[in-house]
Amino acid sequence: MKVLGVDPGTYTTGFGVVQMDGSALRLLDHGLISTSKGLKAPERLKKMYDSLQEIMFKEKPDVVVIEDVFYGKNFRTALKIGEVRALAMLTAVNHNVDVVEYPPARIKEAVVGHGRAAKPQVQKMVAALLGLDKIPEQDAADALAAAICHCHTIRR
Amino acid sequence: MKVLGVDPGTYTTGFGVVQMDGSALRLLDHGLISTSKGLKAPERLKKMYDSLQEIMFKEKPDVVVIEDVFYGKNFRTALKIGEVRALAMLTAVNHNVDVVEYPPARIKEAVVGHGRAAKPQVQKMVAALLGLDKIPEQDAADALAAAICHCHTIRR
Repeated sequence: MKVLGVDPGTYTTGFGVVQMDGSALRLLDHGLISTSKGLKAPERLKKMYDSLQEIMFKEKPDVVVIEDVFYGKNFRTALKIGEVRALAMLTAVNHNVDVVEYPPARIKEAVVGHGRAAKPQVQKMVAALLGLDKIPEQDAADALAAAICHCHTIRR
Repeated sequence: MKVLGVDPGTYTTGFGVVQMDGSALRLLDHGLISTSKGLKAPERLKKMYDSLQEIMFKEKPDVVVIEDVFYGKNFRTALKIGEVRALAMLTAVNHNVDVVEYPPARIKEAVVGHGRAAKPQVQKMVAALLGLDKIPEQDAADALAAAICHCHTIRR
């Protein structure tokens, strides 16, 4: 089973692909989709959408996992996160792939062991769980954490 | 000049197409894209995206106008409005059409004359400005109001 985690952000969206064979987890790919702050929203979203489509086409995951955000800084932030979430969902539907969402606390718990872990802890634990030499960048680590959370959940 | 106004909503998105010839405004099309509340978010967004693409393909507008929301009920609402906004923007970029945004107060002012107008006033004035026999449904009226606001703005 191949799981694509996506961490939607206004200018940078993290992604990570994890292969689960039995109880073994293996990193297949991870990275950041970065867009220029100089781009207008429609062009920025189009660029992100095209990159997500490319990743989906290349990786052909069995499922897409997104963090389900419930609250946040403010209305504008939510609006922008919503925009990128839509792109990830649309991409998944285009490729006939299910979307699964987990709340942030659940993802942190799955990776670190408790729901209030700080970002660097998530990064370290993601690296440890996937046996990586290098700690992944924050947004990519968050995406991988979402993917790992799904793997742990379905393995139960 | 053909202007497509879009009023993004979680389950129902209003749209309206206005033709501007000199100072004359004419209604070309308007309606609602409605999705079932039973659909999961990805399927709901895909349905809305496909409908927006169809409208865009059929109407071939010169510009897409969306209300620029700054504040609202809560984070979840914002997230969902953001999701649908992204679809409208993506559709516009796909068709090489510019997206213009106006704040709600500016749209109301353009249509009713002051920025704090109630929804039924907007509906009535949209009908009057476009010479309609029937008052359009609320979400379609909001979309038409956005389109009219753009027409008034570029005519100045």
